[in-house]
Amino acid sequence: MQRYFIHQAQPHINEKLSLPSSVAHHFITVLRAEPGTQCELVFDNEHVYRASLIDSKIAQVEVLEDLQQNAELPVHPILACGLPKTKGKPELIVQKATELGADEVIFFEAARSVSHWATNKQTKKIARLQKIANGAAEQSHRNRLPQISYLPDLATVLQQTSAEQKVVAWEESAKQGETSALATVLQQTKSDDRMLAIFGPEGGLTEDEITQMQAAGVVPVGLGPRILRTETAPLYLLSAISFATELS
Amino acid sequence: MQRYFIHQAQPHINEKLSLPSSVAHHFITVLRAEPGTQCELVFDNEHVYRASLIDSKIAQVEVLEDLQQNAELPVHPILACGLPKTKGKPELIVQKATELGADEVIFFEAARSVSHWATNKQTKKIARLQKIANGAAEQSHRNRLPQISYLPDLATVLQQTSAEQKVVAWEESAKQGETSALATVLQQTKSDDRMLAIFGPEGGLTEDEITQMQAAGVVPVGLGPRILRTETAPLYLLSAISFATELS
Repeated sequence: MQRYFIHQAQPHINEKLSLPSSVAHHFITVLRAEPGTQCELVFDNEHVYRASLIDSKIAQVEVLEDLQQNAELPVHPILACGLPKTKGKPELIVQKATELGADEVIFFEAARSVSHWATNKQTKKIARLQKIANGAAEQSHRNRLPQISYLPDLATVLQQTSAEQKVVAWEESAKQGETSALATVLQQTKSDDRMLAIFGPEGGLTEDEITQMQAAGVVPVGLGPRILRTETAPLYLLSAISFATELS
Repeated sequence: MQRYFIHQAQPHINEKLSLPSSVAHHFITVLRAEPGTQCELVFDNEHVYRASLIDSKIAQVEVLEDLQQNAELPVHPILACGLPKTKGKPELIVQKATELGADEVIFFEAARSVSHWATNKQTKKIARLQKIANGAAEQSHRNRLPQISYLPDLATVLQQTSAEQKVVAWEESAKQGETSALATVLQQTKSDDRMLAIFGPEGGLTEDEITQMQAAGVVPVGLGPRILRTETAPLYLLSAISFATELS
């Protein structure tokens, strides 16, 4: 069933409400919903409600029941990705990270980031990525819209992000044969913990950035012996979090 | 260090050999290697050797040592993916699955595959995907080149693929709250087992396909409560295999 996010507080059962215009357009014009056609609406309380179209003209639906569905990870992954240089990679990261359960995706200018987002273009670029996240959240049946943002550098990421668990995907960690740090962190992670996970851009992280992170208590973790591209490492980590916390 | 796959039997240490023309072009012309520049060569025995350029004109290198590196998963994942309709998805699956350790990627025409590869175009399409796999295998420092192939339908996949473990990513399994099948299969998997993992196309698998798979002993496994796109599910599975077998 088609799912939409509605930015409103919790509804009452049998409440009638008008869909926002963008949702109304997709549901009624694109999908050709008719009175009686049902959809799933997620409200700000992150609950999913089954609703049914009553009046196509004014895009009015009736809220029928709380489906009591939860597809969120038990932990809250916050990805901080060094801005990749290759076109299309931020989009790929945002789409796939949303499917795989990320709560936030922050892009930051790492020391070796070749790309730079001019201040006057950041708002537009973030809005575009946020739209991709919203679409992916609907499709993957999330209860929560991941938040996409941009920060100038690693120091700001570390300053502004509070998290119980902090890890960095660190190639050297894997090269040195380290194979237990990620599993150890995941074992120590409690339900509802925020987990900041930092990833370098194509050129990797600098010694100075690693030093900054160590000072901030960020744990270096290996993601296996193969070298993963900058956009693949976050997807590995989210899959591992899901496997360890939801399927094991 | 740059890595290349060389289709030759195991070399002797201190053997001098001429690089194949495509490798020579990349190493000497693109990367501007000079006598003394080193690279890593993977031979048919799946061992990685450090080698050094001796003569740029005839692209001759000397094999220096077996690096004794192994970046292969302890199990052999064979992905069978229902041919996706969206342009670019087979390429994405092949590139990412190679990084994440797949041994083979088979595309097959599932009942709900909208795309169809005409017989006279299959060879060209497979060659193109194989080239993507080869590049990704070099970049991710694999010891093995994944094999890419195309089969007409699921029945042929099941007939022609022998594997100790067989799973299918099955959305209904997740919807029914199943959360232990994948972990159970991975616990039962032994070193060097082949694991066939089947994924539907965008429209999913049909009841008939599920019945065929059940008859062939394929185990339905859920990949968590979020709905993953057809190209995301294989990446989740490979990451979970790596986490369970290499990092836990």
